[in-house]
Amino acid sequence: MKPVNKVLVVNCGSSSLKFQLFDMKGEKMLCKGLVERIGIAGSRLVYTKTGCEKMVREVAMKDHVEAIRQVMQVLCDPACGVVRSLSELDAIGHRVVHGGDKFAAPAKITSAVKKLIAKCVPLAPLHNPANLQGIEACEKAAKGVPNVAIFDTAFHQTMPGCAYQYAIPRKVARKFGVRKYGFHGTSHKFLTQAAAKWLKKPLAKVNLVTCHLGNGSSIAAVKGGQCIDTTMGLTPLAGLVMGTRAGDIDAGALFYLAKQGFTVEQLDKMLNKESGFQGLTGAFGGDTRDVVAKAQKGDIDAVEALEMFGHRAALYVGGYNTLVGGADAIIMAGGIGENAAELREQIVKRLGTLGIKLDKKANKAVFGGKSGVISTKDSKVPVIVIPTNEELMIARETKAVLAK
Amino acid sequence: MKPVNKVLVVNCGSSSLKFQLFDMKGEKMLCKGLVERIGIAGSRLVYTKTGCEKMVREVAMKDHVEAIRQVMQVLCDPACGVVRSLSELDAIGHRVVHGGDKFAAPAKITSAVKKLIAKCVPLAPLHNPANLQGIEACEKAAKGVPNVAIFDTAFHQTMPGCAYQYAIPRKVARKFGVRKYGFHGTSHKFLTQAAAKWLKKPLAKVNLVTCHLGNGSSIAAVKGGQCIDTTMGLTPLAGLVMGTRAGDIDAGALFYLAKQGFTVEQLDKMLNKESGFQGLTGAFGGDTRDVVAKAQKGDIDAVEALEMFGHRAALYVGGYNTLVGGADAIIMAGGIGENAAELREQIVKRLGTLGIKLDKKANKAVFGGKSGVISTKDSKVPVIVIPTNEELMIARETKAVLAK
Repeated sequence: MKPVNKVLVVNCGSSSLKFQLFDMKGEKMLCKGLVERIGIAGSRLVYTKTGCEKMVREVAMKDHVEAIRQVMQVLCDPACGVVRSLSELDAIGHRVVHGGDKFAAPAKITSAVKKLIAKCVPLAPLHNPANLQGIEACEKAAKGVPNVAIFDTAFHQTMPGCAYQYAIPRKVARKFGVRKYGFHGTSHKFLTQAAAKWLKKPLAKVNLVTCHLGNGSSIAAVKGGQCIDTTMGLTPLAGLVMGTRAGDIDAGALFYLAKQGFTVEQLDKMLNKESGFQGLTGAFGGDTRDVVAKAQKGDIDAVEALEMFGHRAALYVGGYNTLVGGADAIIMAGGIGENAAELREQIVKRLGTLGIKLDKKANKAVFGGKSGVISTKDSKVPVIVIPTNEELMIARETKAVLAK
Repeated sequence: MKPVNKVLVVNCGSSSLKFQLFDMKGEKMLCKGLVERIGIAGSRLVYTKTGCEKMVREVAMKDHVEAIRQVMQVLCDPACGVVRSLSELDAIGHRVVHGGDKFAAPAKITSAVKKLIAKCVPLAPLHNPANLQGIEACEKAAKGVPNVAIFDTAFHQTMPGCAYQYAIPRKVARKFGVRKYGFHGTSHKFLTQAAAKWLKKPLAKVNLVTCHLGNGSSIAAVKGGQCIDTTMGLTPLAGLVMGTRAGDIDAGALFYLAKQGFTVEQLDKMLNKESGFQGLTGAFGGDTRDVVAKAQKGDIDAVEALEMFGHRAALYVGGYNTLVGGADAIIMAGGIGENAAELREQIVKRLGTLGIKLDKKANKAVFGGKSGVISTKDSKVPVIVIPTNEELMIARETKAVLAK
């Protein structure tokens, strides 16, 4: 069997596409890029070969097929490319948002697998169709190169029934597939493996609370290396306070607002796009750097929003620490987890009962892709910042699937 | 000032009414009763004088005024009554479900107070109007006897903003009063006081997780004797798995079901009346005795429902233990908390990380109104069953308000 070395990782959105090419010998990223405004006037390709300057190509791309064609072209470009021809690609790994309960592991793309991904479209109506378009575009553009789907939900498929089920009528849950799936699974899996290595513990013996905190945020309870609960649900709306997403809210509050005249569509939009840090502070998009800046200027709403974020996250860290039977470490990652000392402090200052104390100096020093322990040396459980790398994880999973 | 000794406690539902009369010297219950089917054919009064047989009077009662008149009559009945005339009543304490953010404490009824209770009607459209009717019926039936309102939400008004707010747009939250209020406050307050006494700690220094577990269930985080978080929300739907209520669910799941054709009214009814233990197991009303019986016969759905109850409750006990900075005790009460050893076990078996071990023998021995510790002697935090008494708490609060 041909060894799997060069793996292209593709993450398709509805009008955008991100990619990275890895050489798996040494897990080296050779290049990365982004296509924006697919099917919209002004589409362009942004591309960076590792160690080189970023370049931008403005070129009309009417669909994902054309976008992938442009990506393949730049990869092989004699001047700035990283391969001589597409035949050098050993595999393409695709991020797929929703695998429903059909995928507990990555899957090599076949027509049967594509049908199953299509079956999950109702669960992720914006994402899964784009993911499928990306897969089919790659099948056309790079004939003979195997494609692999890596699901955002797969890592959470080990959750037991008592965690993944909602207490709604069984027949509704079954008929419509209404249950907790969880997201950011690729990141939580990466963090679990990295933490086990850091702690020098076998994966099957490591208990963790992994916090993926970014514009979207979720926390996972990891017991014996496997996810047993997570804060997101059927959709990525549940759980923590996020950029524009409300996270947890009493369903009764929605029924109440519906009685006050809000339509379901308005509530859906409000909770997904106008809530979270944005709704609490007015910071556009809920960027926590803006929220922190406001809070530092004494804006009460911003101060409170940060406290809310910490209170709710600490509730889950404490609860999950209980459910996993005592974590070996609390892991933080994502745009916030890796960089936002103020937000990390909001969580960690509430964890005294777990024997955890914040090392303020260390907390300030860890950002910008650094890993490090931000709890004091005498803390009973370390809080470790580990930069996540979903693209590398997708490349690893892709390689592993094809090695089987 | 006249001492407040005889206190009538009234709890009005839309078509029913419960009452108890206390002699506050010794906190002795003199009698209790229930009016059913108010305004419906077949209305009746069930009455028990302490130490005597229960009696039933079938009598037409077209409204709450007539129901209260019948109650007052039986209280003064020469044969089975407990007072010679209504002038012996020193006060009437009324349970009022929703005090919104207008009441952080009990309030002596005035026309201003009644107006404020009416303002909270949109938050509890079924309960507050009935509570108001009961108050006005008592004003008419027992002229000169002061009435006091005790709110289910009041104890939770000490929650900080980071706990009681939802991460939705500020202007929506403010305009419509959308926030977490919490319920069962009278019970959580009773348990907090009783636990402080049990632990021989001053109220202001006691940290607890209080679990009121019944057909409706909620958990409260108590720090320094004050509530800092609770599982119910704007409405009593949020949080734990209950008899027919779903508790926590991803709001996105509701938007998803709405897209599948469910109306808001159907979802409201489903989540409030057809979910919880009933929806999971088919047991009518979700009576946990039936669920336990099914589970013991090997019914998988019932076994799983009990695990779900325990998993979710343990998440909150662990989370709240963290937020209060370490609880002095975990308190259990309510129909389930006081009687259902199997359900208590489902929670306590998940609390090993808190240094808590279940004393299986003690757990089986505590039921039917007994108090007792159900954790082992070497447990770091005791789990204590304390029978709650909301009626007595209402009588105490009523007395305290009038003594001011």
